[in-house]
Amino acid sequence: MNPSPFAPATVDEPPAIPGVRLATAMAGIKKAGRTDVLLMAFDPGTTVAGVFTTSRCASAPVEWCREALPAGTCRGLLVNSGNANAFTGRKGREATRISADLAAAALDVAPGEIMLASTGVIGEPLAAEKFAGVMDGLASDLAEARWADAARAIMTTDTFPKVASRTVTVDGRPVTITGIAKGAGMIAPDMATMLAFVATDAVAAPAVLQTMLSEAVAKSFNKITVDSDTSTSDTALLFATGRSGVAITTPEEPGAAAFRAALDGLLLDLAHQIVKDGEGCTKFVAVTVKGAESDISAGRIARTIADSPLVKTAIAGEDANWGRVVMAVGKAGEPADRDRLTISFGDVRVAVEGARDPDYSEAAASQVMKQSEIAITVDLGIGEGCDTVWTCDLTKAYVAINGDYRT
Amino acid sequence: MNPSPFAPATVDEPPAIPGVRLATAMAGIKKAGRTDVLLMAFDPGTTVAGVFTTSRCASAPVEWCREALPAGTCRGLLVNSGNANAFTGRKGREATRISADLAAAALDVAPGEIMLASTGVIGEPLAAEKFAGVMDGLASDLAEARWADAARAIMTTDTFPKVASRTVTVDGRPVTITGIAKGAGMIAPDMATMLAFVATDAVAAPAVLQTMLSEAVAKSFNKITVDSDTSTSDTALLFATGRSGVAITTPEEPGAAAFRAALDGLLLDLAHQIVKDGEGCTKFVAVTVKGAESDISAGRIARTIADSPLVKTAIAGEDANWGRVVMAVGKAGEPADRDRLTISFGDVRVAVEGARDPDYSEAAASQVMKQSEIAITVDLGIGEGCDTVWTCDLTKAYVAINGDYRT
Repeated sequence: MNPSPFAPATVDEPPAIPGVRLATAMAGIKKAGRTDVLLMAFDPGTTVAGVFTTSRCASAPVEWCREALPAGTCRGLLVNSGNANAFTGRKGREATRISADLAAAALDVAPGEIMLASTGVIGEPLAAEKFAGVMDGLASDLAEARWADAARAIMTTDTFPKVASRTVTVDGRPVTITGIAKGAGMIAPDMATMLAFVATDAVAAPAVLQTMLSEAVAKSFNKITVDSDTSTSDTALLFATGRSGVAITTPEEPGAAAFRAALDGLLLDLAHQIVKDGEGCTKFVAVTVKGAESDISAGRIARTIADSPLVKTAIAGEDANWGRVVMAVGKAGEPADRDRLTISFGDVRVAVEGARDPDYSEAAASQVMKQSEIAITVDLGIGEGCDTVWTCDLTKAYVAINGDYRT
Repeated sequence: MNPSPFAPATVDEPPAIPGVRLATAMAGIKKAGRTDVLLMAFDPGTTVAGVFTTSRCASAPVEWCREALPAGTCRGLLVNSGNANAFTGRKGREATRISADLAAAALDVAPGEIMLASTGVIGEPLAAEKFAGVMDGLASDLAEARWADAARAIMTTDTFPKVASRTVTVDGRPVTITGIAKGAGMIAPDMATMLAFVATDAVAAPAVLQTMLSEAVAKSFNKITVDSDTSTSDTALLFATGRSGVAITTPEEPGAAAFRAALDGLLLDLAHQIVKDGEGCTKFVAVTVKGAESDISAGRIARTIADSPLVKTAIAGEDANWGRVVMAVGKAGEPADRDRLTISFGDVRVAVEGARDPDYSEAAASQVMKQSEIAITVDLGIGEGCDTVWTCDLTKAYVAINGDYRT
């Protein structure tokens, strides 16, 4: 697989989070020569919040996390790539229990204090025993400056590791947030999964953390689409070690504003990295709908445009095909008036008042479409609602990655 | 563009419908050398029913038909391929008026008795004056045995003309139904459109005809998907000339049963032909969901599976990837219990009770996936609801057809 054109030349180690230590290993779950297990250890008192897939067929590790989350604290996270432990029935539940027991023993904590995530092949039983052979080594190898390695260990068909960090001043003192993610990739017969693990040294109660995470996810991971498909394993976890001593007591207090802006920005950064590493992606596209009846309506229309195979193939072909954008607006089923639509690609207005812009320039529109980052803006002209969804183009490489491995 | 592997070697002229005459011409709207205009003339007293796109941005001809339909009768239909007259603003409305005026004059009827349909480029003004040069020739050339030619004249990127006919006995007397359709095809910068024009020599009041058409469309054209996108121009019209003298007085009467079964079968036949000529299609796939909470729920899940790019690329790759079917079930948001799912490809059960079938045979499943027609069956195991949606695979040719014309 070729690297994404958006892959960075190098990925630097981000600032560490006091109270978080990481280690990676090769357990032989993924193909030989690649790290496939990540262990994260958190200091006592670390709080946790989580957001999971909306799939009605969630994986066994997602079910495990949902049960563990209400305790509000966490001492360890075990992640494996190579096997999603999804659609594995009773054996899948056993595998999560074995995994948590092994991690808990290595960290000398209770199994209920361990969070789990898996990504990779689905339907194949996860041989959790394989963790036994590497767990002691992981525990003795834990270190704070291992975030970039951790980002590599959770990759499946990602072509680059995804890391982001922000340091902000809250009440005059520095607070750091660092996170990693993996994106929508697929290998035979694997399944795309979005995983994100973010930690901060702020002090925050679980309920406060959950509110901030849920709202940040709504503005980032829930605003991206690669191919409209939803994994059974999507997981975003936020940990707060409290080691900075800086407290976020409520999500609404003035001191929380800077922290939340940083958290929002970090998650959006990771979300954009996921889109930029979408399978076969050559273009990064921001679809903005404004002038809608409501923000929700704008979001639905933006998502319909961003998910449309005809819009996405046109972008791959560098074609300023606003007709397909109109088509997608029409199929969204939301309030819209064909004869009030205005559509722009980049800063080139291509259509206005329900017809091609009288000043339309094919050359100018083509120039926009040749860029690697493209903004599509639709003004419905009927209200004040606005939203943006990010997506990538649909290329032959996407079909090849997801369909060619047998032929 | 290569012909679909499902393209028939020859397309025979179907049985004519007394009271319906057809003619085709080249008006220079589509590329040179191809017929691009169809005129149909109906005897006095012909009733009409119609079903149109659900798009909120419907084309000007769709708006015209919606206004003309309540009269319940129709004397002529003018169809052009090459320009959809969609998203053309005020000029588009003028073009429909000019088109209807020209057809009405040629047939010596009122403009309000003319139905219109257009398919092809969108956003470009339709030069309706071009019809003037061919209209007299069309009118003088009208003949009953022209259905196959008509099917060719409405093609855009279709690779074969779509024709179907049924003759049934109602109250001891023969009644014939003949129809044509064009499918989801796309060329730069065109837009997919589903058009179907069906006629019968039965006697039926407009309201009766409308009920029968609406219900038949719900079971056929509304149960297919090529790429989940919805045209601004989708139009299905049913005409009844009454020339057989056989009356369908109500949709529910015993005598109507045979007629409705034939109409349902004919529309399903045309719908399947459209899928089999889907862009880049190499596989015809029936997705059946049973054991759902309701038929509606089953239909939603079946459509989610049939629309999933990951399922469709797996089929293109001849991969029995039931994991992606589980994923699609999960994302549909309908009631489902992961641990009760049973999934079959053809007659090979690949998963049962939420895990891989213990008797799963990779060889047997692969054999099924190599066939050109594939049945995917999902039993949710929670109710009695059942539905089927038909789709095709997603191939590199689809991306090429829809994205490659600039690069």
